[in-house]
Amino acid sequence: MKSEGLAGLTTVSVDWEEPAVIILDQTQLPNREAYLRLYTPEEIWEAIYHLKVRGAPAIGVAAAYGMAVCAQQFGEQSFSVFFQKFTEVKKYLASSRPTAVNLFMALDRMEKCVLSLQDQQVDTIKIKLQQEAEAIRAEDAAACRSIGEWGLSVLQPGMGLLTHCNAGHLAVSAYGTALAPVYLGQERGYHFKVYADETRPLLQGARLTAFELQKAGADVTLICDNMASCVMGQGKVQAVLVGCDRIAANGDVANKIGTSGVAVLAKYYGIPFYVLGPTSTVDLKCPDGAHIPIEERQAGEITEKWYTRRMAPPEIKVYNPAFDVTRHELITAIITEKGILYPPFDRGLSKL
Amino acid sequence: MKSEGLAGLTTVSVDWEEPAVIILDQTQLPNREAYLRLYTPEEIWEAIYHLKVRGAPAIGVAAAYGMAVCAQQFGEQSFSVFFQKFTEVKKYLASSRPTAVNLFMALDRMEKCVLSLQDQQVDTIKIKLQQEAEAIRAEDAAACRSIGEWGLSVLQPGMGLLTHCNAGHLAVSAYGTALAPVYLGQERGYHFKVYADETRPLLQGARLTAFELQKAGADVTLICDNMASCVMGQGKVQAVLVGCDRIAANGDVANKIGTSGVAVLAKYYGIPFYVLGPTSTVDLKCPDGAHIPIEERQAGEITEKWYTRRMAPPEIKVYNPAFDVTRHELITAIITEKGILYPPFDRGLSKL
Repeated sequence: MKSEGLAGLTTVSVDWEEPAVIILDQTQLPNREAYLRLYTPEEIWEAIYHLKVRGAPAIGVAAAYGMAVCAQQFGEQSFSVFFQKFTEVKKYLASSRPTAVNLFMALDRMEKCVLSLQDQQVDTIKIKLQQEAEAIRAEDAAACRSIGEWGLSVLQPGMGLLTHCNAGHLAVSAYGTALAPVYLGQERGYHFKVYADETRPLLQGARLTAFELQKAGADVTLICDNMASCVMGQGKVQAVLVGCDRIAANGDVANKIGTSGVAVLAKYYGIPFYVLGPTSTVDLKCPDGAHIPIEERQAGEITEKWYTRRMAPPEIKVYNPAFDVTRHELITAIITEKGILYPPFDRGLSKL
Repeated sequence: MKSEGLAGLTTVSVDWEEPAVIILDQTQLPNREAYLRLYTPEEIWEAIYHLKVRGAPAIGVAAAYGMAVCAQQFGEQSFSVFFQKFTEVKKYLASSRPTAVNLFMALDRMEKCVLSLQDQQVDTIKIKLQQEAEAIRAEDAAACRSIGEWGLSVLQPGMGLLTHCNAGHLAVSAYGTALAPVYLGQERGYHFKVYADETRPLLQGARLTAFELQKAGADVTLICDNMASCVMGQGKVQAVLVGCDRIAANGDVANKIGTSGVAVLAKYYGIPFYVLGPTSTVDLKCPDGAHIPIEERQAGEITEKWYTRRMAPPEIKVYNPAFDVTRHELITAIITEKGILYPPFDRGLSKL
């Protein structure tokens, strides 16, 4: 396990130790810190699909490591056979979740790496794939640190901050995106007071954000999603920080379901709403939020999951979108590792 | 058990059958329809505190029946001894929950009834108390029917409706308040499509609203609270209907936590936001929302309740307000049994 050099944090969400991808099984948090070793495409697919590893950047890193690990097992053959196997696994892993663009970006980058090495020995390609996955991870970690610095520059010590879902170090390889300024502020005595939405139905806020911030010694208070309006109305929140799963060319942002509602509340209460993410989350091929595919998940996540007994009547109709789109007009700024973008976002994003 | 004459509904939330108050234990829904017989002040207090009976009007009716039932047990004594026991029990029941004004209104009305009968035999007073409780219940049922008619007059067939928490027939003695127009519309072929917020942490939407609407044959879809923005943004909602626990003189409304957030969303998406409740919920002594006491409940409701295992780290800070205040500026209309009030609400409410 690599150390992230982050005070108070000992958990690492995705790692690689030959011949396996290692992930912290986030579905078992906060009760157990269990690490899983993944060897096969099926194991990696299943870990992403069931959110054992989650968070847009972490999914990208897990997929990249996954491709490198699977490629080790392709045996000694011609480039064309190797590449056929590679694309099969790539296509399969890409089908695990539809919304976060980092998954596709990471897989495309691994494919480009292979294609650039057609004249090389398969053994060499395998080593290069490991290096490429490591590079994706390292760039992600550096981006998070930079996002944290930019984010911190718009905040003041003592502020109340609200966040939705988990865009902390569990969602990426270090520091997090939305939570990166919180961790940097923590190191520098900013004494933020963080409100964490529990984030139904999968409770990433209660299980993950509360867990990682508490572990780092930050001042964090857990609330239900429907309490955000109340704490904002009471003047307890001076800024909202959220991550993102995909940023469209016009600045519309797909993120965990409920994010758009928090953005509307922030606008009403006059609170700045910041979206933080690496530029790998920007998808210029996607013109606006209406073109982002939104994953719909099973009804049981709402009616049964986590519970001792079913909490809704049998055969009730359920709508369970995993993400929503926050319109660009609701966003104060988009903060990437390259700086802070203010509206109009379309111009700033195309320049990146 | 009295029949409410409502097609498709067989459950009654509060009733009285000498010598007990009978309530449907709503904490066991939707899995079990269990009725409890309550005889003592402690049993009645506990049922209200633990939300076995809940909903502002139903709490009022339960407290009134409760006073009548307890008064039966006071024995044969002088008026002064009887009245002393009465006020002790009244004070005790009033301490069960702080926000819904109907609780205090019903108890005050029972006390007025006693005080108007100081020259009567205690046995006569006991009978009159039963009659007074019956009257409170009957007036509540009539008010709901009337609220339903007024509410229906602002809706069109085929509309998508969103509701938060449960203000259906389980919350009152019949029809409900926010859901009364839905039931009347159901009887008249309006084919509404209802979205029910699950309403964390106590899941009244998932357990109660979904249950009673499904049972009545209505078209109901369950969503998490944080999905309201998403369904509104998709154009699926043409009106929001919510109940209320207390209406202040300026039109600010206390209702289940999350209501104010739904109101902000409705304003942003241009959807009318209606508050429906009997005039017994209006508290003219309360100038505005800032003067309504807001009940805070235990952390365990968010971190542990319903779950197979704890869903947040140990000793995490939690904020758990049970209600919030919706500012009058966010409300399209307040619909009572006496008609539809539009802004400015202060004038209309004082006229009631």
